[in-house]
Amino acid sequence: MHAILDEALYCHVGFSLEGQPYVIPTIHARRGEQLLLHGSVASRMLGTLATAIPLCVTVTLLDGLVLARSGFNHSMNYRSVVILATATEITTEADKRAALDALVNRVLPNRAAAVRAANRKELNATTVLALPIAEASAKVRTGPPHDDEDDLAMECWAGELPLTLTALQPVPDPHLRPGIPVPAELTQWSRRGTDGKS
Amino acid sequence: MHAILDEALYCHVGFSLEGQPYVIPTIHARRGEQLLLHGSVASRMLGTLATAIPLCVTVTLLDGLVLARSGFNHSMNYRSVVILATATEITTEADKRAALDALVNRVLPNRAAAVRAANRKELNATTVLALPIAEASAKVRTGPPHDDEDDLAMECWAGELPLTLTALQPVPDPHLRPGIPVPAELTQWSRRGTDGKS
Repeated sequence: MHAILDEALYCHVGFSLEGQPYVIPTIHARRGEQLLLHGSVASRMLGTLATAIPLCVTVTLLDGLVLARSGFNHSMNYRSVVILATATEITTEADKRAALDALVNRVLPNRAAAVRAANRKELNATTVLALPIAEASAKVRTGPPHDDEDDLAMECWAGELPLTLTALQPVPDPHLRPGIPVPAELTQWSRRGTDGKS
Repeated sequence: MHAILDEALYCHVGFSLEGQPYVIPTIHARRGEQLLLHGSVASRMLGTLATAIPLCVTVTLLDGLVLARSGFNHSMNYRSVVILATATEITTEADKRAALDALVNRVLPNRAAAVRAANRKELNATTVLALPIAEASAKVRTGPPHDDEDDLAMECWAGELPLTLTALQPVPDPHLRPGIPVPAELTQWSRRGTDGKS
């Protein structure tokens, strides 16, 4: 479960407001048995989640297409984790800074140490939430299609198409000063390479 | 909004049951101004959604990491669509078959015509839902980081790392008969290539 949470670059947070469910994508970071989320103090989502309402955080990694000989047996290979929890706000400054660093390091390993830390205004503008990874379940599908015996003789290709997230060439910021090298974490980036490094 | 829904291979469906929100990944297909979902008749999620409770379907495409010079300005480039709706079950056989074909064609373009269609038992075991793409909103972030003026002089690389979903080599089913060619849609697969073809 930890490996799935650590490999995913973002999650979907579900919560209900006056009977209407909302599902919002956002960055997460795992710290031990806690999941960290953050956002603007002005965000309706963060403000709502901070009131300790029930929420659901789901992380999904798509690993491939599963092509069967019948429409019914088509599927996708994936790994997902569903966490049910309530969140609490992180309010002490040291803990909040550590959580924000963990979130920045999810964008890119070792990144927090390379950039300017949050100033007072930024700290005050950000809400950080923690929730326990306690009531959680994982689902994983791997491998070939499961076709009916009677379909195996069909004149139809069947199998898997593995999919993976890959990086293209880094695009420098138009304001980037000349002579600043691209970080090794960028040139060597791979989705699985981010495992456990945050 | 249609382009985002058509490029995404799966969505996250949010619904609430006795006050607890749930967020579940599943395949979707767009048909005009409708979104189609399906699942097992035995599935708690499908049974719940078919009772016309409020739901939220969110689709997210991650396009890249955004590396700023401050932790605060880090971000990700993405495109997402959030749909609020209630679903209705598709019950007539012709419409149900058409919807299932659309869902199979989301796994791979043109796939439905190449495989065995659903038999009576499979049709009866599957619930298909349709929901209107009416109350919906899209969010898109593109481009470089937005750094503070004061940070631009820093000795720190900044920019974007574009990410894309790519296919590896197809893996034939162990039961595949010899001599059956790999479909062109598999060898030419690209995430953007699936646009509008389903």
